[in-house]
Amino acid sequence: MLSSKTRLFLACTALLAVAAGSLVSAEDTDMAMLERARGVFKPLPHTMHVDDYPHSAARVELGKALFFETRVSSDGRMSCAACHNPSYHGADSLALSVGVHGTKLPRNAPTVFNTPLLVAQHYGGNRATVEEQAYKALLSPLAYGNASFAEAESKLRAIGYGESFAAAFPNEVEPVSAENWAIAIGAFERTLLTPAPFDKYLKGDINAISKEARLGADKFINMGCAGCHNGSTVGGNSFQKFGITEDYWLATGSKEMALLKGRDKGRYHDTQKEEDTYLFKVPQLRNVARTPPYFHDGSVAKLDDAVRVMARLQLGQKISDPDVALIVAFLDSLSGEVPAQFATAPVLPVSGFENNKN
Amino acid sequence: MLSSKTRLFLACTALLAVAAGSLVSAEDTDMAMLERARGVFKPLPHTMHVDDYPHSAARVELGKALFFETRVSSDGRMSCAACHNPSYHGADSLALSVGVHGTKLPRNAPTVFNTPLLVAQHYGGNRATVEEQAYKALLSPLAYGNASFAEAESKLRAIGYGESFAAAFPNEVEPVSAENWAIAIGAFERTLLTPAPFDKYLKGDINAISKEARLGADKFINMGCAGCHNGSTVGGNSFQKFGITEDYWLATGSKEMALLKGRDKGRYHDTQKEEDTYLFKVPQLRNVARTPPYFHDGSVAKLDDAVRVMARLQLGQKISDPDVALIVAFLDSLSGEVPAQFATAPVLPVSGFENNKN
Repeated sequence: MLSSKTRLFLACTALLAVAAGSLVSAEDTDMAMLERARGVFKPLPHTMHVDDYPHSAARVELGKALFFETRVSSDGRMSCAACHNPSYHGADSLALSVGVHGTKLPRNAPTVFNTPLLVAQHYGGNRATVEEQAYKALLSPLAYGNASFAEAESKLRAIGYGESFAAAFPNEVEPVSAENWAIAIGAFERTLLTPAPFDKYLKGDINAISKEARLGADKFINMGCAGCHNGSTVGGNSFQKFGITEDYWLATGSKEMALLKGRDKGRYHDTQKEEDTYLFKVPQLRNVARTPPYFHDGSVAKLDDAVRVMARLQLGQKISDPDVALIVAFLDSLSGEVPAQFATAPVLPVSGFENNKN
Repeated sequence: MLSSKTRLFLACTALLAVAAGSLVSAEDTDMAMLERARGVFKPLPHTMHVDDYPHSAARVELGKALFFETRVSSDGRMSCAACHNPSYHGADSLALSVGVHGTKLPRNAPTVFNTPLLVAQHYGGNRATVEEQAYKALLSPLAYGNASFAEAESKLRAIGYGESFAAAFPNEVEPVSAENWAIAIGAFERTLLTPAPFDKYLKGDINAISKEARLGADKFINMGCAGCHNGSTVGGNSFQKFGITEDYWLATGSKEMALLKGRDKGRYHDTQKEEDTYLFKVPQLRNVARTPPYFHDGSVAKLDDAVRVMARLQLGQKISDPDVALIVAFLDSLSGEVPAQFATAPVLPVSGFENNKN
């Protein structure tokens, strides 16, 4: 907290700066903007591993195989990679994802990159960690569709994963387990960091991003977007109501969906608490420029339109086209490369898998 | 043609060799086996490109992107790579493949590797080239499920492939076309050669494959397998009846399928000619050890069982377990590596694709 004296001092300084006008050099402005950015954003950490889920090279390697493995699903075609595809920057390019047996999922798939840093998984936040997400996906009728963990484990053994699990989970009596499936996949996912030009900027390399991107970051902060979209993942650390100043379903292209299917009540579906109605996890904005379409229902196809919708429905502002362009330039500076270990397909066990006469 | 004098000389030489017995050195035997192998098999060629479908680096690059592109399909999830997956050696590991909207396909997906060398595409041979296969897949209700080529072309434009098509097909008035989609995908597929240890062997490096594999190749020839499975792709160059000495559907695990769905009449479905009943393209055996399950219906899970079924139903022979092991060793020597350009996922165009509100 600032003392009132300090506040007065800062206010005077700001007034003086405005009065000085052209006396403030471009360099000062650049540094001031950088400092403001540093106040709300952080560079990505160097690792996402946590002690709760100890990892090893063998676990990461196994987790990568399992991430791409389709034979554990009830139609033999579903895998983590089906919705988190290397060709689509860890997402799937669809408005609504498609699950096992071709069933339509109720929400849009976000990118898998950097997700272990988020407050929780899924738009409703009903999975605390990526490990819990991977674990429960085994039984979800929309994801892997197994009737029991035993069924999934039996498939893993039949495919021939016994040795890989034993190497990844040494000294365990029965290493092939749904719990270890989840820990291994989590170990792999915890390697999927995507540092971006914006991180270099935050670390002091002013020219790592364009002038438009720098101005866009400043605009993003000043408009209030950074109130929710902040931290190292530029969002993903809180739940907020979707449609604060206006009704999302009436104001956007989701009207038809609201009429047909009812409104997605967000976190309410998970907590059954009235106060969670229409609350959704604030999405991270890392790689947002590479992962359209937008919002939990994929209802908006273009990033500039998504920025307009957010300004209107969350902040009650009509944003000018030049400002949209600046913010889009900033968002683009959050795009990292597809991690090499994610872009290269693993060679999966070859096995005459008796169970997959799908 | 050999003169009768020469034949007599060769016959005598053979008799002498047999009489000499232990005088024939191991090296002579090795060379004789290699010569026999060279009589029926050929190394893979260096290229699969043909003048009919001229290619360029830009075409191959575009073709790779299109191979992995899902947004052209009617459910937004189907691509060539769905059934021809880098993690499963260019196949999908399933008995029967799964098409668009989760529909079950009637047959097993073969590996895509080396397929431009085959006599035709599909088990019934109803596609003359890989290009024709890619072209017609756009409209197949089991593959991409588009209502018209115009629909597919419009999706390609909306996704943002205009420039890539223009680069790959310069000087064309409208480069984005279903025909060019097919030519580009074909150009990529024509790079997917998988040279294997057996090729080195054929070129004279005796120890490139194990002794068991060499003996297995000889056994494969002597038993008659090579009557159909020959040439550079060890099969794939003719159509043959499935079940010559015994009825396939009665003799194998496909009984149930025959009762439930009727028998797959193979090429008859494509030609409507009685003489084509139960005729199927002889599969190539390159990478067969890496691409279970086996046969057009994926009814057999293990390679050794597949060898036994073939010996029984095609040659009327009961084959000993040691001989099965030798032949499996030979077949394993036909496995090549997944081509690097296939294992690395392309980064696909990012676009707010308005049409994919699937």
